Amino acid sequence: MTTYTTNDFSEIVFGRKSVRVYDETHKISHEEMLTMIQEATTAPSSVNMQPWRFVVVESEAGKEKLKPLIRFNTRQNETSSAMLLIFGDLNCHERGEEIYNQAYASGKMPKEVRDQQLAAIIPHYESLSREQMNDIVKIDASLAAMQFMLVARAHGYETNPIGGFEAEKLAETFGLDQERYVPVMILSVGKGMETGYESVRLAPEKITTFE
Amino acid sequence: MTTYTTNDFSEIVFGRKSVRVYDETHKISHEEMLTMIQEATTAPSSVNMQPWRFVVVESEAGKEKLKPLIRFNTRQNETSSAMLLIFGDLNCHERGEEIYNQAYASGKMPKEVRDQQLAAIIPHYESLSREQMNDIVKIDASLAAMQFMLVARAHGYETNPIGGFEAEKLAETFGLDQERYVPVMILSVGKGMETGYESVRLAPEKITTFE
Repeated sequence: MTTYTTNDFSEIVFGRKSVRVYDETHKISHEEMLTMIQEATTAPSSVNMQPWRFVVVESEAGKEKLKPLIRFNTRQNETSSAMLLIFGDLNCHERGEEIYNQAYASGKMPKEVRDQQLAAIIPHYESLSREQMNDIVKIDASLAAMQFMLVARAHGYETNPIGGFEAEKLAETFGLDQERYVPVMILSVGKGMETGYESVRLAPEKITTFE
Repeated sequence: MTTYTTNDFSEIVFGRKSVRVYDETHKISHEEMLTMIQEATTAPSSVNMQPWRFVVVESEAGKEKLKPLIRFNTRQNETSSAMLLIFGDLNCHERGEEIYNQAYASGKMPKEVRDQQLAAIIPHYESLSREQMNDIVKIDASLAAMQFMLVARAHGYETNPIGGFEAEKLAETFGLDQERYVPVMILSVGKGMETGYESVRLAPEKITTFE
């Protein structure tokens, strides 16, 4: 784990804003990007199936391919260290055995639990409809996306979550099977060169009831 | 904002585990719960439409209603301080004017920007299909769910995200219009009485490509 720019939870979480302009000269090393992804993916997922998949668009050529798909968000694409494309893998259960074997091999799960879990989970996931799997992978990948935004700030970076893009073209443009990988979100990441706008929220009383 | 039990980012994020058994005698005050929801909802959302809605199930009667809908997760229901039901509001744009007026009134958005944004966003949201709105609200509500899990730890609580429940019955059981409010996740929250299992993750290199 890298040394953090800050480890102050309040500052990291409540100081986060969407930043759209970054220091164009700053590159993030693959090592640091993978560290941030590792940290982001400590997020939980349904039956630990970890359906999140990432494409880090950082080269000129990659950003050129992305440009026509991101509508009004060209400044982020032009100035960020990277655009992180987050997909959900609708066939994530194909890695179920690998994940549960890893849990067993590292001593974190007894063999019987591994076997019972796999015997229940894999057929269940195979039985779900495309719509049900879409919901699961979008929820789980969003949990990791939120952690990535926070982890990036601990590393001294800012982000901007982008939902407005040509969703039906994103996977194919980057060589992924679009029947299998559904786009969830794009996050720009880099050294912030603006402070970002302050935003407002509805009061919690307005969106909450007690039962 | 309450004083935190800990403000250590690494400890909060990487120490999080799914905890399923809680101190049954511990109640969370409405004030603290609303503070945690306020803190969780500093998460970003698409065009700041904040589609997350919460039902805090804390009474005996409420938990009794929830019990038949949560399958294997009865221990969390029985012992937690509360079960937080997280819904996405498919008609969230009905609060758009209220949100953007609040931004203008608090001096965070010029009048012209408010008017331009509302004139673009409301018709756009009205034009989206149910499937597209479902995706948006599930992604956005999941971002707030992740922040809630972390904020809860800063307050000294543990959580367990629950995806396995009778989704088609949840809204109606708690008096919400099921055509409008789609269930996203249930989070149990309380004082942890077990440490939770350690879990494993796929190495970041296995789930990431660079372009």
